[in-house]
Amino acid sequence: MALTVVGSIAFDSVRTPFGERQRMLGGSAVHFALAASFFTDVRVVGPVGDDFSGEHLEVLAGRGIATDDIERVAGGETFFWRGHYEHDMNVAHTDDTQLNVFAEFEPKLSARSCEAQMLFLGNIQPDLQRDVRRQSSASFAALDSMNLWIETTRDSLLAAIAEVDCLLLNDAELRMLTGRPNLAQAARAAIAIGPEVVVAKRGEYGAALFTADEAFAIPGLPLEDVRDPTGAGDSFAGGFLGYLDAVRVSGLHDDRALRQAMAYGSVMASFNVEDFGTARVAGLSEAEIAERLTAFKRLTHFEETAILR
Amino acid sequence: MALTVVGSIAFDSVRTPFGERQRMLGGSAVHFALAASFFTDVRVVGPVGDDFSGEHLEVLAGRGIATDDIERVAGGETFFWRGHYEHDMNVAHTDDTQLNVFAEFEPKLSARSCEAQMLFLGNIQPDLQRDVRRQSSASFAALDSMNLWIETTRDSLLAAIAEVDCLLLNDAELRMLTGRPNLAQAARAAIAIGPEVVVAKRGEYGAALFTADEAFAIPGLPLEDVRDPTGAGDSFAGGFLGYLDAVRVSGLHDDRALRQAMAYGSVMASFNVEDFGTARVAGLSEAEIAERLTAFKRLTHFEETAILR
Repeated sequence: MALTVVGSIAFDSVRTPFGERQRMLGGSAVHFALAASFFTDVRVVGPVGDDFSGEHLEVLAGRGIATDDIERVAGGETFFWRGHYEHDMNVAHTDDTQLNVFAEFEPKLSARSCEAQMLFLGNIQPDLQRDVRRQSSASFAALDSMNLWIETTRDSLLAAIAEVDCLLLNDAELRMLTGRPNLAQAARAAIAIGPEVVVAKRGEYGAALFTADEAFAIPGLPLEDVRDPTGAGDSFAGGFLGYLDAVRVSGLHDDRALRQAMAYGSVMASFNVEDFGTARVAGLSEAEIAERLTAFKRLTHFEETAILR
Repeated sequence: MALTVVGSIAFDSVRTPFGERQRMLGGSAVHFALAASFFTDVRVVGPVGDDFSGEHLEVLAGRGIATDDIERVAGGETFFWRGHYEHDMNVAHTDDTQLNVFAEFEPKLSARSCEAQMLFLGNIQPDLQRDVRRQSSASFAALDSMNLWIETTRDSLLAAIAEVDCLLLNDAELRMLTGRPNLAQAARAAIAIGPEVVVAKRGEYGAALFTADEAFAIPGLPLEDVRDPTGAGDSFAGGFLGYLDAVRVSGLHDDRALRQAMAYGSVMASFNVEDFGTARVAGLSEAEIAERLTAFKRLTHFEETAILR
């Protein structure tokens, strides 16, 4: 089992009502890889600049993540994002984005990254996602995207979505992509584009999964201390796909495995928001993950009793 | 077992992207009573005008609901609401509200309505809610409210909330009431006012329940056909409290019963939105309710398996 992720490796400067941090390690590939590393072997593909130190690399390598496909661009600077959150932590306000080495990124997957049986295409320009999909021989590929690409490169994005098995999007973006305000209809329209599995990420409200035959939904854990939601969606995707890769033997179209994967995705996202950047997820123990899964089970459990009059 | 509800009995004119209806039977007490009537004996208290016909009364009486505390005000007109929904069916736009007989409403509960062991104070002016609470000898009282009362009669509302056992509010209103954007913190602050149970209604995202020790959350059922969300919150409350009244023998502080009640509330709300006004709920069969409960169980079920590496 192995899982390749292509996406941004970034420095994030983030301000929330609970504090401020400068140039933390971040980016979709980083948050995804750390979460997935608790379940399966992960390989990260993406560019960094000279400012990316051995210490940053060690955060990934320390979790057993293969970093040999991280391309260091001489004379370049690492992708940078600055943003803040007001009291409504569901909304990220972007203050600055510097593509830097990402502007010229031409993904080149090593043989081992190509061979991984599962592929996650993090939120990057959809033509890059398609390029990576073509190089990979993964039997299951998932894709994340955002409003920017829906608005500016819609046709490329639709082509990229048609070539993957699983689409993950925020629910508002799923509605935007399909032009359907009703989520169940939006999911059906997304499945018609090509993917067999569609996951709607719903922020604090949790996430919902749709296939042609089934629907599953899980609420978010009501946490009293949410410090930094940056990367929560990618941590979700990491737990979700990491678990699916780990139980690969059960088959991809195993409804039971998809539901469990949604729960593990929710677990990893719930940890992600508890501290700034990668601090919480990078330092997790397996016992904490198991305990949090039990918390989700407890949060959602009810008995089916018939007591109508 | 018996459950008294005080709230509006109304005529609603509603337009949604899926059609338009004039002067349908509606109001918080009506939607609540119809949903609760599948679980327990329900008594409705509230005023109507000369325009309220025997046919309207029969919708309630046909479900076995006691209507003898519905006060007919000679020469008066029934409460009227006109509103519409755009494609985002989560947001109701009010176009007209005519209090009519409600403007002079002084609740007078009959002996039988006073004696019901459970009381629901639908969304009306909080001083009226307090007046009713004082008349009732219910051992468990629940209250719903809205942004209007939070903004205009905050002190009365806080006093009313302090006198009930259960508070039901939209999650945005719970945040507004407590000044806490974090839902778990908002729920804790609401419990500090007095109620032992706080329910946050979350529209299409479902609902969450908080007590001092426990949290429970259930997502909404992803329905492809949502025709009219008016009354969904009251249908939820009717299923929730109706079930709690029915299983009264288990005790009010039974975590298991509260979870099941949340599921039945969700079931009744999911039916409410499938057609205009009271059409869907008033005509339900017990088999449909049982089947929908199974659908919620299927929607939310996952197995707790430990398969970390």
